[in-house]
Amino acid sequence: MEAENIESMTLDSVKNFVEEAIEDLVLEKISSPLDRPVMSIARDVLLGGGKRYRPILAILAYKAAGGKDHREVLDLALSSELIHTATLVHDDVYDQSKMRRGKPTIHTTHGISHAIISGDYLFALGFEFGAKYDERVTGKVRDKCAGIASGEIRQFEHIHDLNTSPEDYYEIIDGKTAGPFAYGCSSAAMIAGSNEEIFNALESYGMELGRAFQLVDDILDLIGDDLIGKPRGTDVHEGKMTLPIIYALTMLHGTDREHLKDVLTNFGDDRLHELVELLERAGSFEYGKLLVSNHVERALAHIETLPASDEKDLLREIAMISESRTN
Amino acid sequence: MEAENIESMTLDSVKNFVEEAIEDLVLEKISSPLDRPVMSIARDVLLGGGKRYRPILAILAYKAAGGKDHREVLDLALSSELIHTATLVHDDVYDQSKMRRGKPTIHTTHGISHAIISGDYLFALGFEFGAKYDERVTGKVRDKCAGIASGEIRQFEHIHDLNTSPEDYYEIIDGKTAGPFAYGCSSAAMIAGSNEEIFNALESYGMELGRAFQLVDDILDLIGDDLIGKPRGTDVHEGKMTLPIIYALTMLHGTDREHLKDVLTNFGDDRLHELVELLERAGSFEYGKLLVSNHVERALAHIETLPASDEKDLLREIAMISESRTN
Repeated sequence: MEAENIESMTLDSVKNFVEEAIEDLVLEKISSPLDRPVMSIARDVLLGGGKRYRPILAILAYKAAGGKDHREVLDLALSSELIHTATLVHDDVYDQSKMRRGKPTIHTTHGISHAIISGDYLFALGFEFGAKYDERVTGKVRDKCAGIASGEIRQFEHIHDLNTSPEDYYEIIDGKTAGPFAYGCSSAAMIAGSNEEIFNALESYGMELGRAFQLVDDILDLIGDDLIGKPRGTDVHEGKMTLPIIYALTMLHGTDREHLKDVLTNFGDDRLHELVELLERAGSFEYGKLLVSNHVERALAHIETLPASDEKDLLREIAMISESRTN
Repeated sequence: MEAENIESMTLDSVKNFVEEAIEDLVLEKISSPLDRPVMSIARDVLLGGGKRYRPILAILAYKAAGGKDHREVLDLALSSELIHTATLVHDDVYDQSKMRRGKPTIHTTHGISHAIISGDYLFALGFEFGAKYDERVTGKVRDKCAGIASGEIRQFEHIHDLNTSPEDYYEIIDGKTAGPFAYGCSSAAMIAGSNEEIFNALESYGMELGRAFQLVDDILDLIGDDLIGKPRGTDVHEGKMTLPIIYALTMLHGTDREHLKDVLTNFGDDRLHELVELLERAGSFEYGKLLVSNHVERALAHIETLPASDEKDLLREIAMISESRTN
């Protein structure tokens, strides 16, 4: 592993450090006969950009929790990005998504078989890195995966279910997104050898940030800019009941509500504009953004008591950026 | 975990011990809110029978290597069965198999999404158990998974490739089957704290047994009995170039070879009998069985020098049974 130093602590420098570590990993595996056939296929999606939130958070949480040498947490950071990428590759198969990180998905270029196998391989790699720590950390990695799987199964139970409640929604996103953010931050604190208070603070920070992050994602699916890397309205096509939609179904009445139901059950790209208009009328985006603000505020409050550090500042910065991002 | 004792060391008692441990695991996870949604779906294939070769081998190898308390190796045994089951669930998706272990596959009953997610979950569980040991064992678990993934990718490269060589075939089966058998046995020896000689002996035993096992599977796909749990000719439908076919393509000439090519490229259930006749004429089954005998003999030779024990005898028994099984 060549990537060793972070020159100064900015979000960009941490991201660059992560990118280099991923590149080193790909190079190492691609030169091993055992890994080459499958890494040749998995390489593109791994190197294909992405925000790298999860590994960045692991590094920042580790340092903010008092960790001295960020190389100690690198394996956890890589593990979280590998497992996240694995879930993306698999999600794209069953969601039949054509684009990911601005490029064609593996199942589009290589077929379903190769996408499933590449995802499995990325999982295995991710677990290997996660297993370099003690059992408590490995347990968190596993809990994260069980939560993602259960969250996704729950999401399917509510596909096209117009009676989905906000509580159902939070149960889903806590499993698939917020839990992984939370466990990522707290296991980094564990590796740093932090006390329970800091551990809990970072886990709660991760949970609230993850909720904000998923809410923003769900809003951007409807009104994000062109840099989002996938077509707008993807969630609606897939029948996913995201919060802006759930809220509008509660707030609208009479013909507006019938209209909304019709758009949702007979959705097509040509109806996205119609849907967005209805959601605006219901106040869904304002409400969604208010929830995002609340989660970000809570995230910030949770780390308030952490000792001052550059990394604590960057954790604050990430939370604030996540609120205002447009893709 | 309730399953704790193996009353007397027979293959049946070891298998029962494994079955009970799997049942306990399912019960434990199904009562956890984090796991319940996905374990409810994964449960059936986990409890649906199967030969349990991999966990049985882990336990026997551990004891044959001098391990004192088989509960120490139970997590590795479970890990190998969980990861194996995960690969089966995923294989069945892209092979579009309708039956597994005599029951409808998950993607048939619940859809592709649920099958992919359940498989991912089983992988995560399998890794968690594999990660309960030190880094060398975890490394073997990862190598196993990388080998399976690469073996499967290589197999796809040779789908319907009538020029596939026996070397290609061995590269594929070493990755997807023999390697996992080998690593399973040697990591069990590691856990038992064995010396290098015993470690190597058991790894080589596992490798040869795994080759024999896969060769027998490939022969049974063509001429197995009805208890095999899936339709005969499945591999041929999928265009997999198994050894009996590769051998016949080399041995047959003139019109017989053209006939064989025609059967392979225009295969249907009604042509299985025709294919089997051609392979018989080529001597494919005799040759295949000869190779199986050779691998079994080599497997037995590798463990010859192990100290005498009931478990060593059972490792011999498994090798001999694997040679003569008909489903």
